[in-house]
Amino acid sequence: MILHDYYRSTSAFRVRIALNLKGVEYETKIHDLDQQTNRSEDYLKVNAFGLIPAIEDGEVHIAQSGAIIEYIEEKFSHPALLPSDPKGRARVRSLFNQVACDTHPLTTRRVANYLQHSNYATENDARTWKLAWLREGLMGMEKVLASDFCTGEFCHGDQPSLADIALVPQVYSALSLGLQLDDMPNVSRIYSACLELPAFQKAHPDSCVSNPH
Amino acid sequence: MILHDYYRSTSAFRVRIALNLKGVEYETKIHDLDQQTNRSEDYLKVNAFGLIPAIEDGEVHIAQSGAIIEYIEEKFSHPALLPSDPKGRARVRSLFNQVACDTHPLTTRRVANYLQHSNYATENDARTWKLAWLREGLMGMEKVLASDFCTGEFCHGDQPSLADIALVPQVYSALSLGLQLDDMPNVSRIYSACLELPAFQKAHPDSCVSNPH
Repeated sequence: MILHDYYRSTSAFRVRIALNLKGVEYETKIHDLDQQTNRSEDYLKVNAFGLIPAIEDGEVHIAQSGAIIEYIEEKFSHPALLPSDPKGRARVRSLFNQVACDTHPLTTRRVANYLQHSNYATENDARTWKLAWLREGLMGMEKVLASDFCTGEFCHGDQPSLADIALVPQVYSALSLGLQLDDMPNVSRIYSACLELPAFQKAHPDSCVSNPH
Repeated sequence: MILHDYYRSTSAFRVRIALNLKGVEYETKIHDLDQQTNRSEDYLKVNAFGLIPAIEDGEVHIAQSGAIIEYIEEKFSHPALLPSDPKGRARVRSLFNQVACDTHPLTTRRVANYLQHSNYATENDARTWKLAWLREGLMGMEKVLASDFCTGEFCHGDQPSLADIALVPQVYSALSLGLQLDDMPNVSRIYSACLELPAFQKAHPDSCVSNPH
């Protein structure tokens, strides 16, 4: 399996964690978003959307981290990254999508670029914009995690799931920008618990930079 | 099953289509985003994120349209809204997420409000912003649909799937804002094909307005 990757991509970070949790061996092709290699003709044949990440598994080419991780979950059953009960599956997918649909898309580089290039906002305004959406999204996660007895050592019970796979990269991104998590005890606690696990450590952007391909 | 709904919500439109395609009977509770009933204490007990849509199925409460539709797909198997083969499932989920993660979140009311209330942009700038992201997202869909022999009468083969469920509300929203689809023949054709089906017609915002609950 080939992962089209960029160490600073929050969504690629998600896929790296999922592959590591499943113990899947994969080859990495690094794209540099500064150089826009993700807009090259070769890459557009793999992913016509031109966004990172994507995977190639033989003739199967998949874009979008959510679709990639569901594919990995169906292909490699152990360890399960979704609970077996319908209610639990829905809760975990809902938490994943809270990050993937309602938080992260507003904080991407292409949105910050648009803000700055449209003369709406200075670089500092773009940072404030990102922090506002990160805080709103992560506070939403905190409320759900705090209010529900299904929350355990991790977002759902005591095993990592799709919800943690979404949470950790988003928290990393928020901390990098200087967001304070003092009023998010569950988010902070689960972030730390995840980073104790080798699958999360190995996927971490810092590991990718210190061990470049 | 109870759907917390708002006729103008693009993501609630998706859930209405999925329920109709499956032939599931459901009760609707309408929220008026102008009145912010989605921020009421009662609703926050159902969905701590405070966003529309959500469903209640007995004790199962689910937020996020993607999580809701996967739940519906697993609970009501016929007609399938995901293909049975892994490659097809991945393609359909990828198309769904292209809309749900990379297009729609940038065009929501809360983002337009933020833009205008932060003095970044006038009402007209906010419209331009929405049109730019809608065009980029739908052009991405067009490229994938045009380049792949899996595209049929609908986004994937000749049966409606999650991909069409995402596409139709997004196209409706784009057309309402005045986006031209002349250079998107596949998107236009599939949009029209879907609107021939009663499940899509009944879910349409115009039907909701003419048949208020």
